[in-house]
Amino acid sequence: MSYEIERKFLVVGDFHPFVRKSLSIKQGYLSSHPERSVRVRIQDKEAFLTIKGKGNDTGITRYEWEKKIDVTEADALLRLCEPGIIEKIRYIIPVGELAFEVDEFLGDNLGLLIAEIELPSEQTTFEHPEWLGAEVTGDVRFYNAYLATNPFCKWQ
Amino acid sequence: MSYEIERKFLVVGDFHPFVRKSLSIKQGYLSSHPERSVRVRIQDKEAFLTIKGKGNDTGITRYEWEKKIDVTEADALLRLCEPGIIEKIRYIIPVGELAFEVDEFLGDNLGLLIAEIELPSEQTTFEHPEWLGAEVTGDVRFYNAYLATNPFCKWQ
Repeated sequence: MSYEIERKFLVVGDFHPFVRKSLSIKQGYLSSHPERSVRVRIQDKEAFLTIKGKGNDTGITRYEWEKKIDVTEADALLRLCEPGIIEKIRYIIPVGELAFEVDEFLGDNLGLLIAEIELPSEQTTFEHPEWLGAEVTGDVRFYNAYLATNPFCKWQ
Repeated sequence: MSYEIERKFLVVGDFHPFVRKSLSIKQGYLSSHPERSVRVRIQDKEAFLTIKGKGNDTGITRYEWEKKIDVTEADALLRLCEPGIIEKIRYIIPVGELAFEVDEFLGDNLGLLIAEIELPSEQTTFEHPEWLGAEVTGDVRFYNAYLATNPFCKWQ
């Protein structure tokens, strides 16, 4: 049993010069319910099954359970998922002891960029680089589970 | 990737004299969707996460993925599940090389008894003991995922 403590931001500037590493992600949802999402993710040559509960009052902390699974099994499970598979490129950008993950969405979510930072506690402070935009932590529209069924291309 | 090949029956007679073993089961659903159910089960001192796809045309075969998980993790995941936790006693009754599993439901499904038999192929024949009633294979009302949200006590 563990908790994910994470803050989420829009991206408003060029972060590319600071990227340390990038990886490709393909993921789908067996359940996109915000209180019990079940995600299948293939990330480069690894795959994971991840279950998340609902966010707490601040929206920063969520219960998270994750297990590594076989990529071939993940492929089969992706075929069972709700319509709306998400594909994105994830860029890792270190800041001090921590790291931003900037997700550049493809397909129906093309044009959307979201930066996330995982924290050891809700109170942890961190550097806000110039390319970081407005905070969207806890805004369910920016949950990937929401984007799977309500892609960015259909937003007003 | 594997498939569950299973037939399901009502129970109309006394099966107790033939029981070889019994175990207690508590299970909930992170998703009760019949095309992608996600089940958390604690069975005596073991726990499993099981994902099932929809049944084929005959309703006998369903895609199934299962992983053993820690009981303490299963306990935490059960708290995330949809309302409607199922509790039942499972009785194992050998028939030749195969075995019936008779589930005696408790709580809101009290009074319901379902016998299941897992088969190596859809064509496999097996003995039908006297206590076995009508076949309900493929009838989604007898899916445990359905019973979780539509318990037997509320049936007309």
